[in-house]
Amino acid sequence: DVLTIPKDDAVAFTFFTGYMAMLAASIFFIFERGRVDDKWKLSLLISALITFIAAVHYYYMRDYYLATGENPTSLRYIDWTLTVPLMCVEFYLLTKAAGAKIGLLWKLIIASVWMLVAGYIGEAFNPEGGDTTHSVLWGFLSTIGYIYVLYTAWFGEVAKLAAASNNPVVKRGVRTLAWFVLVGWAIYPIGYMCMPGGWLNTAFGWGSGNVDLFYNIADAINKIGFGLVVYSIAITSSRK
Amino acid sequence: DVLTIPKDDAVAFTFFTGYMAMLAASIFFIFERGRVDDKWKLSLLISALITFIAAVHYYYMRDYYLATGENPTSLRYIDWTLTVPLMCVEFYLLTKAAGAKIGLLWKLIIASVWMLVAGYIGEAFNPEGGDTTHSVLWGFLSTIGYIYVLYTAWFGEVAKLAAASNNPVVKRGVRTLAWFVLVGWAIYPIGYMCMPGGWLNTAFGWGSGNVDLFYNIADAINKIGFGLVVYSIAITSSRK
Ligand SMILES: CC1=C(/C=C/C(C)=C/C=C/C(C)=C/C=O)C(C)(C)CCC1
Ligand SMILES: CC1=C(/C=C/C(C)=C/C=C/C(C)=C/C=O)C(C)(C)CCC1
Repeated sequence: DVLTIPKDDAVAFTFFTGYMAMLAASIFFIFERGRVDDKWKLSLLISALITFIAAVHYYYMRDYYLATGENPTSLRYIDWTLTVPLMCVEFYLLTKAAGAKIGLLWKLIIASVWMLVAGYIGEAFNPEGGDTTHSVLWGFLSTIGYIYVLYTAWFGEVAKLAAASNNPVVKRGVRTLAWFVLVGWAIYPIGYMCMPGGWLNTAFGWGSGNVDLFYNIADAINKIGFGLVVYSIAITSSRK
Repeated sequence: DVLTIPKDDAVAFTFFTGYMAMLAASIFFIFERGRVDDKWKLSLLISALITFIAAVHYYYMRDYYLATGENPTSLRYIDWTLTVPLMCVEFYLLTKAAGAKIGLLWKLIIASVWMLVAGYIGEAFNPEGGDTTHSVLWGFLSTIGYIYVLYTAWFGEVAKLAAASNNPVVKRGVRTLAWFVLVGWAIYPIGYMCMPGGWLNTAFGWGSGNVDLFYNIADAINKIGFGLVVYSIAITSSRK
């Protein structure tokens, strides 16, 4: 009953490094939180919670994947149900310095919950063997929620508030946030399209193991990477 | 189902002491972090993370080794994938006081990732029974990355910045770092050459169990030993 990781299984490899990286990141954010100014402490705590929640779910996902070789779809969406709204809180906290109201947070949360519910139906209830109609329909509906967040970050409320602000730290933070939503978040739909019936699966024969490969890479970028960006902004602005 | 350690198995012995030493070291670095000046706190946290990550992986590796008697190659490289880049961060933080730019960190990380990827191919995909061509080729490619880090520490950017600095603490730190890369890191390729098809395996008949014996010794020196060196520099310079 010992843990054996096949040497040529990149998905298993990323589940393991993912687990440990999330745990290490949450320890990092918690300890470094003591070194930033008071106004940044909440953001660092949210980063720590996002990575800690993910560490626990990665622990279960890697075992599930090793034992069954299947995508741990339920666990993945259980994780996102908690971490994506927290990510919206993170975005809101950054924008708050430029004058954002609490309503912005709710709009981001509603759009991203819509995105996740549609995505879950698309993945979890994908008919046996995969069906392109099903995955494209629900993927499309999910993408509407994603596009809303993307629009808000680049042209909508978030962008406008940042443009009107004369705080360079806030401007820089919001610009980075917008890039993460554009590039980092876009890796998830690529993963989605690798499931049976998905476009990348039918077109290029990318197997369904790649779903988790992309999700794991994207999670590392968005949960740890974005957390580190917030940390570096916090530590720089605390030094002055 | 109780833990049994064969009395004459040096590899198992080092896996167990390694596990406990890593865990103890991470507790040590976390607590002593509270006693050093603010500018050293990040370095001590990184040391703690390196040893904590290793503790978790040693926990799995020793069980894997006891159950199968084989080298836990995947787990070993999963560990290095996280701890070697963190080690580069540690080097960068030491050199930063002498004026290093963030580009240096990226160069060190890229060189060491190259080293690990080539090493992984050499070890994980070594043909059944061992093949000298395979292990020498990939070992050679891996060594290029190692030599780059070594060169940077002794003659390149790191060495030049230290030479130009008039801070004796930084000078001492960088000199120690260079010695660790030269002596401490060189133990790993010795371990590598003990695998089937490796030079030390074919020439002297050093069995593949020695791979992990050398890796465990080297890990203790580099992860704990180097962490203690940074700690002692930090505590000395905090006293003034
Ligand atoms: C667009 C789209 C998707 C987007 C998922 C995203 C964008 C997830 C983001 C997760 C984050 C940011 C987690 C952070 O902790 C799905 C659901 C795969 C379904 C296919 C269409
Ligand atoms: C040169 C060389 C190697 C070097 C490995 C090293 C140098 C690993 C360092 C690990 C450290 C420093 C961990 C710290 O936490 C390999 C991959 C065995 C393959 C053979 C050639």
